[in-house]
Amino acid sequence: MFLRVNRVYCTLRSTCNTPLRNYSAPSLPENDTLKSRTIFSGIQPTGIPHLGNYLGALSNWVKIQNENPQDKHIFSVVGWHALTLPQNPKELGASRRDMLAVLLAIGIDPKKSIIFHQDSNAMHTELAWILSCITPTGRLRRMTSWKTRLAQSRNANSESEVDESLLNAGLLTYPVLQAADILLYQATHVPVGEDQNQHLELCRDIADSFNRTFKGRSRMFPLPTALITPSKRILSLTDPSAKMSKSAPDPSSRILLTDSAKQIAAKVRGAVTDSISTGVSYDPDERPGTSNLLAILSACFGHEDVRLFAETCRGMSHGVLKGEVAGAVEDLIAGPRAEFERLKGDVGYLDQVAREGAEAARELSARTMVQVRERIGLS
Amino acid sequence: MFLRVNRVYCTLRSTCNTPLRNYSAPSLPENDTLKSRTIFSGIQPTGIPHLGNYLGALSNWVKIQNENPQDKHIFSVVGWHALTLPQNPKELGASRRDMLAVLLAIGIDPKKSIIFHQDSNAMHTELAWILSCITPTGRLRRMTSWKTRLAQSRNANSESEVDESLLNAGLLTYPVLQAADILLYQATHVPVGEDQNQHLELCRDIADSFNRTFKGRSRMFPLPTALITPSKRILSLTDPSAKMSKSAPDPSSRILLTDSAKQIAAKVRGAVTDSISTGVSYDPDERPGTSNLLAILSACFGHEDVRLFAETCRGMSHGVLKGEVAGAVEDLIAGPRAEFERLKGDVGYLDQVAREGAEAARELSARTMVQVRERIGLS
Repeated sequence: MFLRVNRVYCTLRSTCNTPLRNYSAPSLPENDTLKSRTIFSGIQPTGIPHLGNYLGALSNWVKIQNENPQDKHIFSVVGWHALTLPQNPKELGASRRDMLAVLLAIGIDPKKSIIFHQDSNAMHTELAWILSCITPTGRLRRMTSWKTRLAQSRNANSESEVDESLLNAGLLTYPVLQAADILLYQATHVPVGEDQNQHLELCRDIADSFNRTFKGRSRMFPLPTALITPSKRILSLTDPSAKMSKSAPDPSSRILLTDSAKQIAAKVRGAVTDSISTGVSYDPDERPGTSNLLAILSACFGHEDVRLFAETCRGMSHGVLKGEVAGAVEDLIAGPRAEFERLKGDVGYLDQVAREGAEAARELSARTMVQVRERIGLS
Repeated sequence: MFLRVNRVYCTLRSTCNTPLRNYSAPSLPENDTLKSRTIFSGIQPTGIPHLGNYLGALSNWVKIQNENPQDKHIFSVVGWHALTLPQNPKELGASRRDMLAVLLAIGIDPKKSIIFHQDSNAMHTELAWILSCITPTGRLRRMTSWKTRLAQSRNANSESEVDESLLNAGLLTYPVLQAADILLYQATHVPVGEDQNQHLELCRDIADSFNRTFKGRSRMFPLPTALITPSKRILSLTDPSAKMSKSAPDPSSRILLTDSAKQIAAKVRGAVTDSISTGVSYDPDERPGTSNLLAILSACFGHEDVRLFAETCRGMSHGVLKGEVAGAVEDLIAGPRAEFERLKGDVGYLDQVAREGAEAARELSARTMVQVRERIGLS
């Protein structure tokens, strides 16, 4: 599931017997009998992803793609979701193109995956309309994100300040569009962050409701199951009480995937740590800034256990740690950054990828919609 | 605008200098500079239309088509709207096909008009999504139809009995889909019944909101203007305090366009009148049943002024009046009824009309969506 650029979602359709590396797969009895799996992930085109997006989600997409060649992989830039908050159309248009280039630059491969713009496949909105006719408004109003986004959209300081009636309908119903994104490809597994479990629950409920309302020879939609991804919660460099965020006012609070080595070094150098001078240690409560740098470094090196990794850094000063972090981040993103710049100049190739991806996505979702239309009586 | 089969809507895109016959066109300053006009009308596929639908709206569609060959005419069977209330999929599928046949049978001509299924053109839902992102939920919750349909959908006796949170989201947002239906073809005039003015107001507001939010070289959407059709309010034959309705429990309260001469005669014979035996007169308050029969007879003959017409019937008994009504209704619908039966057997032709109509509708709406997508930044 996703909200903005810092929220991504992916879905796994799966009964592969080899567990997906780096994921703690819950038991999935209802989906375990399926023969093939499809992985679907979406990201909003609302700016260049930052390090938190990359380490927390995007790098996993590439891993999933490369380590599971037997699966169907679908990656989508979900432009329609971006409309639920006010956007500058020119910036949105640029972000839309950039996000495709970013996904390619980090290693999403059109030969291995379908990569496409959601807004090139109107079946997403068609299915969303159909599903909205079996989704109670009360269920949508209870979504915590509704009130949060509400506050965000009105520039209010707190949810209680907001006049709910002024909020747009898309803001209320976007979890239905999200469910349609997932169900259109009949996905069964959705890797989500812990804060997005509520959306997946709704998606499951909608799928179940459809299955019960419109019966056929077989169940129309599998109920997608959460696959909690290992939490790599990267915090703001300037305020380690908050997550690294695209929308934070201070640009030095985040490292973008397009930042130069110089920019990275400057931002890391300015990162808030603490005044403890006897080396560094991983202690998120007492030393959040330092722990965040250790978490970044650990993630850049691909370590699973930051606490264990942090032990190896005990003797470092803050200055040395920052130097290590800046270097590791640069090593991590130098490749994608260069590839992004190269791809941005190759408009013909980007257009081709988008066009072929859209065709493939439409072909796949058309199979679902033929059945859906037949079951509801509109065919 | 429309609700179910007894609610139809049509839209006029127009600057024609000759006023549309049979319509009282309000002054339309903002649309009067346009060079061409497009007429769009939609009807839900929820059963065979009854006499009230035919006299109140459908017969006007044919008149509009035939009397204004210079215009673009588009008639749509709006299946997605039907989903906002529970439907039997098999019945809905049959109604969907039947409604196309009915429109052809009454005289909608594929050589003069585009006739198509809304659900064959996903751009309706695409535009609806986009418009839902600029439509406040409070505006939708204030629509009177929301609470009415709410009661209807829950089988409640009154609106106050209904738990709003159980209502589906489609029921709340369908006026946005309705606005999309209209704006997708850049219509400027919407012939509506008086009870549907609120929906048109919303459509205008949404169009205006889009124009102001997403500016371009020219205004994206004309603000569609109401064209109040002459009120031909046909009442229930068995309860003349209510409109003739598809959903009333008593089938003898309505005459369907497919009723035989015998069925028509029996239903008219059983119509509620009054005990005044000194001839018939038009007095809707004191003699609602008798006045309804006079209104039907007047409309069947194509008279505009029922009061004037009723004077010519003063000497009739109720029995004679009923005989006249039964005969006039039979004369009116015998042709369409026979044509409907013939068309139902010609599945190949119906499919061809639907296919060609959908192609034409998509081609037309694609021109709108190219501009819309460009303005919002998703292109």
